[in-house]
Amino acid sequence: MDKIKVGIAGAAGYTGCELIRLLANHPGAEITWLMTGKTNEGKRLHEVFPHLRGVPERVFQPMEPSSAQGADVVFLATPHGVALSLVPGFLEAGCRVIDVSADFRLKDPKTYEEWYQKKHTAPDLLEEAVYGLTELNRAGLPGARIVANPGCYPTASILALAPVLREGLGHLDSIVIDAKSGVSGAGRSLSLRTHFSETTEDLQAYSPVRHRHVPEIEQEVSLLAGRKTSVTFVPHLIPMVRGMLATIYCKPTRVVDTKELTDIYKAFYDQEPFVDVLTAGELPRTKNVWGTNRCEIAVQFDPRSSTILVVSVIDNLVKGASGQAVQNMNVVFELPERSGLESIALYP
Amino acid sequence: MDKIKVGIAGAAGYTGCELIRLLANHPGAEITWLMTGKTNEGKRLHEVFPHLRGVPERVFQPMEPSSAQGADVVFLATPHGVALSLVPGFLEAGCRVIDVSADFRLKDPKTYEEWYQKKHTAPDLLEEAVYGLTELNRAGLPGARIVANPGCYPTASILALAPVLREGLGHLDSIVIDAKSGVSGAGRSLSLRTHFSETTEDLQAYSPVRHRHVPEIEQEVSLLAGRKTSVTFVPHLIPMVRGMLATIYCKPTRVVDTKELTDIYKAFYDQEPFVDVLTAGELPRTKNVWGTNRCEIAVQFDPRSSTILVVSVIDNLVKGASGQAVQNMNVVFELPERSGLESIALYP
Amino acid sequence: MDKIKVGIAGAAGYTGCELIRLLANHPGAEITWLMTGKTNEGKRLHEVFPHLRGVPERVFQPMEPSSAQGADVVFLATPHGVALSLVPGFLEAGCRVIDVSADFRLKDPKTYEEWYQKKHTAPDLLEEAVYGLTELNRAGLPGARIVANPGCYPTASILALAPVLREGLGHLDSIVIDAKSGVSGAGRSLSLRTHFSETTEDLQAYSPVRHRHVPEIEQEVSLLAGRKTSVTFVPHLIPMVRGMLATIYCKPTRVVDTKELTDIYKAFYDQEPFVDVLTAGELPRTKNVWGTNRCEIAVQFDPRSSTILVVSVIDNLVKGASGQAVQNMNVVFELPERSGLESIALYP
Amino acid sequence: MDKIKVGIAGAAGYTGCELIRLLANHPGAEITWLMTGKTNEGKRLHEVFPHLRGVPERVFQPMEPSSAQGADVVFLATPHGVALSLVPGFLEAGCRVIDVSADFRLKDPKTYEEWYQKKHTAPDLLEEAVYGLTELNRAGLPGARIVANPGCYPTASILALAPVLREGLGHLDSIVIDAKSGVSGAGRSLSLRTHFSETTEDLQAYSPVRHRHVPEIEQEVSLLAGRKTSVTFVPHLIPMVRGMLATIYCKPTRVVDTKELTDIYKAFYDQEPFVDVLTAGELPRTKNVWGTNRCEIAVQFDPRSSTILVVSVIDNLVKGASGQAVQNMNVVFELPERSGLESIALYP
Repeated sequence: MDKIKVGIAGAAGYTGCELIRLLANHPGAEITWLMTGKTNEGKRLHEVFPHLRGVPERVFQPMEPSSAQGADVVFLATPHGVALSLVPGFLEAGCRVIDVSADFRLKDPKTYEEWYQKKHTAPDLLEEAVYGLTELNRAGLPGARIVANPGCYPTASILALAPVLREGLGHLDSIVIDAKSGVSGAGRSLSLRTHFSETTEDLQAYSPVRHRHVPEIEQEVSLLAGRKTSVTFVPHLIPMVRGMLATIYCKPTRVVDTKELTDIYKAFYDQEPFVDVLTAGELPRTKNVWGTNRCEIAVQFDPRSSTILVVSVIDNLVKGASGQAVQNMNVVFELPERSGLESIALYP
Repeated sequence: MDKIKVGIAGAAGYTGCELIRLLANHPGAEITWLMTGKTNEGKRLHEVFPHLRGVPERVFQPMEPSSAQGADVVFLATPHGVALSLVPGFLEAGCRVIDVSADFRLKDPKTYEEWYQKKHTAPDLLEEAVYGLTELNRAGLPGARIVANPGCYPTASILALAPVLREGLGHLDSIVIDAKSGVSGAGRSLSLRTHFSETTEDLQAYSPVRHRHVPEIEQEVSLLAGRKTSVTFVPHLIPMVRGMLATIYCKPTRVVDTKELTDIYKAFYDQEPFVDVLTAGELPRTKNVWGTNRCEIAVQFDPRSSTILVVSVIDNLVKGASGQAVQNMNVVFELPERSGLESIALYP
Repeated sequence: MDKIKVGIAGAAGYTGCELIRLLANHPGAEITWLMTGKTNEGKRLHEVFPHLRGVPERVFQPMEPSSAQGADVVFLATPHGVALSLVPGFLEAGCRVIDVSADFRLKDPKTYEEWYQKKHTAPDLLEEAVYGLTELNRAGLPGARIVANPGCYPTASILALAPVLREGLGHLDSIVIDAKSGVSGAGRSLSLRTHFSETTEDLQAYSPVRHRHVPEIEQEVSLLAGRKTSVTFVPHLIPMVRGMLATIYCKPTRVVDTKELTDIYKAFYDQEPFVDVLTAGELPRTKNVWGTNRCEIAVQFDPRSSTILVVSVIDNLVKGASGQAVQNMNVVFELPERSGLESIALYP
Repeated sequence: MDKIKVGIAGAAGYTGCELIRLLANHPGAEITWLMTGKTNEGKRLHEVFPHLRGVPERVFQPMEPSSAQGADVVFLATPHGVALSLVPGFLEAGCRVIDVSADFRLKDPKTYEEWYQKKHTAPDLLEEAVYGLTELNRAGLPGARIVANPGCYPTASILALAPVLREGLGHLDSIVIDAKSGVSGAGRSLSLRTHFSETTEDLQAYSPVRHRHVPEIEQEVSLLAGRKTSVTFVPHLIPMVRGMLATIYCKPTRVVDTKELTDIYKAFYDQEPFVDVLTAGELPRTKNVWGTNRCEIAVQFDPRSSTILVVSVIDNLVKGASGQAVQNMNVVFELPERSGLESIALYP
């Protein structure tokens, strides 16, 4: 079979170059076009990313459908708002689109406008877009024209919450998600918050309860729970490059214990190639998933405070972004789901 | 007035050398004896801690009352269990004791035995010991013979919770404390968990809901709330040396908002030299308190999930251990409370 | 063709698990036996290294030839001295041996004894052993029974010096190697020097001019230069996990400039799959080779002080240890040299 | 005696806020004016630097002499080139000036123009300016109107080389300075090189042999050596905030050994409050001087390669910038040299 021809828009950022890394060794895909914004347009790939020296050289093209004539699929690793203007053109040109930005994640255009302060200009396509948390929405993916690739925090949070919500085990007004992320999640754009001397040896919460991933988490939690649900979500910036950990607290609706919870989680994710539920008593750490598309989850019950505790870890750039995007591509094109995603964690 | 003569037992660990740093520039105290366990006994201070080259040289003595003849106060920066055997002797020798270990923090000897797997051999002294969270128990400190210096997590957590509990604003069965600590809190003893290559670029939760600081937090929370209270407490290890951040979640007992909460916190800590309540909208970061005895607190209300959110930061080795111990010494001996603790955060 | 059957002794350390990572995805090799010292004997691989969850489970066997019956090749990632006792047995059992430790690197057993304070008990095998700096000794590798895999510092240093030495361009009494290494090079054994709180935000030189890699570097430099040569070598410990950078200074024997030097280097390494000579004006950084078997080299001439400057970077655990060992295995068994080593640097 | 009234221009950068930290606890000085560029003009100190909450609030004024009417001394922590235009006005207003930038360090205006690509507009004042490497130029400081505060690399390098040069022990064409710096030396301005995800877990050389500190080092080395001397200088960026280490290599002019060298160094710096020469065999580390104005130096002789090796460490923001500036102020105003600089290293 011919290799899938891939274009990547926004290829000069961290999500973009992580897509290149994953696709360069993918047996069924071939990177043919790289597109980027004005700053890097016309530059060579190896000039911007010398670590990719082993990958075939490419020149960054302008971000427009004509740059990717003949592509089977285009990944959009663009700032929020850009996909809105690009997607219709790519669809028209016959490409499928995997949007790693937030533009097609929220089903209700009003919610998008409220949280992103921007009118949603393609509400008709919202309905068509499949929310690509692969483990939960695999059935809708084969052949999809638009995949809305989930955010990193939603991926770590929803995978951790799904079994408890599907089983109706959690009090819906008690969900607290305390999330921690490495700095690469903030991207390659400069800011004082991500300036080395500010970030190293520092720890802070940011955007508490108003982070843009809140409506995305709530949308999916509500779907899983079967009714509209709010969550408390506080992200924290951790002085490390990669890795994300979500610590989730929830009151149970009935008597449970760690063993039963672990069994439920193990059953739920039994067939999943990228989700590992740990044995009761074990705990995940981000180093275990460094550079991989894997998610590790542990669940416990605290009988003293009667609380269900779930801890999940992912690599924010892989399962939290580019890896999951490749996983979605695999399912959309009915390739083996693990293709291009078999790498082992880089430890230590 | 003569300077207070100070002995430090367990002086070869991180808490010990931080006590030396703080006391070396203290205008009212003088370090006269350093005591330590077998490993470092007989060694010179500058041999073990070359960074203290500016401080007068001393030789580490064995840890026993005869090593500190004439001391006005002895700090115990010893592993848990050691203070139990040392305190009676020091008291008999006429010293006051500030115990930075956990041995005199839990009022109920049975709780101590349950969480530390060790019989409490001085239950009579437990009653006398003052729990030295200075801001809450200042009245009992002047002249105290034994001060039980709080743990780092309890300090960050209880300071953050006190106003809400005193005002009866929090649902007591809903308290979640998600705490994050730099690695120095684990001390100078070697372990795989604190091996550089394991810890850097890694993030993990540890001892969830069973950390030894749980009963200490619950004891003080129960006192503040006026009834026995359990909390959910999960600590995390952060790849940085110093700094601790507690993110605390609690359901309100009545309608509140961020402004009212901030006013309550500002009023509560108005006169405190070491606690700063931030303006509504500001957030603390650990870098702001690096090397200082200060605690920064921010409080917010999340109307969407109806949750009170408190974030507090301290330097785990200063306000979380040695700095608070010096603060307690100042109050016990009726010195100005800021003495020796005026240093400004080292930033960046 | 059947896959090569591989045994790894010392598999519970960082070099060992890096071998496992690389070989797990190697198309022509199969890990069949893992051997380790007493501490981890009998444990399961996934228990010791949960990050290897995707790799088939194995139980750590005792380190002895009978543990690897039928192996085609055994990698020894053991502490210095251990290979001396193991190699004869493995050879007798018909295995080839790739020794990642130092035991077969120094051709003169007296030099070994001087620098390692240990008698060399297999001097007869020393002559047979091929020093596996693949780029320089490729011809001797096919079919070799014993490969002495180079140390990390020698790899970075000798690759950087080889062209200048082969061309006779360097004054031999002027060579200064200022080397910097990430902490993983110190292994998984605990020590105060590699304790997180000691290492992070710290920088130090260690073992200046007496590091055990000095005689190894001098042996190879002397071979390249054609006469006995001493070098000044000072290693430094850098607060990061992986990565090694060598900055090398040398006076020229004749007038040169950056362009000529760069051309010489480019010609020298033209056909090498794992060595990249950068364009004049570019500089290497360790992030560019993170997790890969690549070496990047830049060379410049400083006309002001009349000095040749070479900067090289490698990943100390890959090209500096396990990756080069796999590269050597490939050449010994006449597999494609890149097999199992095609991964792209993990950035950022 | 009245306190010295101090103005700081460029107070919103790292050097500026470090001056504030040091002067806030200085017994003989008082910060009265803070000046800054357009970005922060009109902002409050605590808004820009919340870590300085304990220091009296101030508003940032424009950078012009009228902003500091009545100041006894003004520190210029400004980008290169700015001091050229500010110094004459401040002198006219009767202030002394301590220039922490590079504008008055190079005695030859042509050298300044060559390395800084900018015409020197105050060549007449160059002669008057005292190069404030306090240990070497103390005699010229009392009463000086302009002090040119040395760069961080020159401070670490020249202190390490001075004894060997004064004794005529080093071959002047053989000096190699391999320097390593924490990231804070690059300041608070944003750049990709100091973006957290780029810098952490990375190591690189930069500006090899063409860094702007080269002419400054050569000027002072030439003065010490008594004849024009070139050096090879290569700086490296280390993934940590603070700390600088210089490793210096030099061929001896006569037979020496480590003991004699150490004695020479100890004698040279015997009376210095801020320079510690370590005992033979000891090695400095940056953590030992974190946050302090101290410099630690070790010297060794390598008989194998016949090379003198000197290793020095400083905190780049203190002895390498703001601390030395305060030290110079103390000497200029004939205050005790240690005033405001007695803090102990923050360890770990």
